[in-house]
Amino acid sequence: MSDSPPGVADLLGVLAYAELTAFLRLAEDATRHAPSLTDRAALGGLAAAEYAHFELLRDRLASLGVDPEEAMAPFVGPLDAWHAQTAPGDWLEALVKAYVGTGIALDFYREAATHVDDETRELVEEVLADEGRSQFAVDRVSVALRQDPRQSGRLALWARRLVGEALSQGQHVAAARPELAALLVEASGEEITRMFARLTEAHGRRVAALGLTPGP
Amino acid sequence: MSDSPPGVADLLGVLAYAELTAFLRLAEDATRHAPSLTDRAALGGLAAAEYAHFELLRDRLASLGVDPEEAMAPFVGPLDAWHAQTAPGDWLEALVKAYVGTGIALDFYREAATHVDDETRELVEEVLADEGRSQFAVDRVSVALRQDPRQSGRLALWARRLVGEALSQGQHVAAARPELAALLVEASGEEITRMFARLTEAHGRRVAALGLTPGP
Repeated sequence: MSDSPPGVADLLGVLAYAELTAFLRLAEDATRHAPSLTDRAALGGLAAAEYAHFELLRDRLASLGVDPEEAMAPFVGPLDAWHAQTAPGDWLEALVKAYVGTGIALDFYREAATHVDDETRELVEEVLADEGRSQFAVDRVSVALRQDPRQSGRLALWARRLVGEALSQGQHVAAARPELAALLVEASGEEITRMFARLTEAHGRRVAALGLTPGP
Repeated sequence: MSDSPPGVADLLGVLAYAELTAFLRLAEDATRHAPSLTDRAALGGLAAAEYAHFELLRDRLASLGVDPEEAMAPFVGPLDAWHAQTAPGDWLEALVKAYVGTGIALDFYREAATHVDDETRELVEEVLADEGRSQFAVDRVSVALRQDPRQSGRLALWARRLVGEALSQGQHVAAARPELAALLVEASGEEITRMFARLTEAHGRRVAALGLTPGP
């Protein structure tokens, strides 16, 4: 870890646990909420892709001489809390979470990866390249909203709750892991609250892509 | 499907749904029962491998002009019933199920694949090649039994229940899908009950590999 800033193990650790738990949660949502086998397989595909990312990150941690389990441990609480507070109640909520939740995470990790060593940044960017995998979620939500536009308000509120809980957990993590927070502030060259505002803005673009009304 | 026997869509369909649902169930077991993040990741890795198999089978069905959802549909009931009756109560039961349950399925599908067309058989064999993925389950169960040999009887009974429920569901499937059953009988050139006896024997070897006592 000699030429890596001290937050790198934290960054790889939070990202690894985020991918591992996203894999397991998406699989659970697919089992519980998918209305057809095709839909179950599609959300399952997103889940399996997250596992492949987890493996890359775990192997990178190990190659840096860091125990993956130790690197992930500080982030289990906040990430589990986020998932517990945002367990989808139905298939549309599961799709919005798959798209919006993944998007928030992508933005957050991309910010943090700006100022780490080249090898780590390339790995993080590889993991974060969405490659259109979550587009199926956008397509299915759009179709559902055309069939029943009244769902829009409810799902817009749901999306807001997803980002609100993410920012809340993100602030806990930043307070508990100052070295990781330093990566974020250094990366953006500005106050962490301004960066959070930028993440919220990106979230608004995703909500619009889903065709959700901005709400009251 | 011109040069494939009529049971091929059934074989690919049951195998596809088995892989899809094994993926989701293993993920669920990993979430619920793994005692550490390393263990959770290991069982998650088995789960993700099952998803990759599912994709191969789904694409093969599609390339044969068969709707994957339709091909899987007849097997949802029996496979879901098997999983419902064999939901692991703890981590050791989850490991034994991952190893023994996968093994039973491998034997069963391998029998059925003997007399199908070359391309289908090669695909099935690729999907069924375990490549030592489930060895970690054997290792962990062996360690646990050395630490606490009293677990052996309970887990041996559990393994027997896994195979008993599998044979029971397998007989339902064979009765409901005569073309698939014909593949099995043709493959083995003998009565289906004798083939089931052979599957049970292979199961006994796996139970021994786990270090479980044969029981009363």
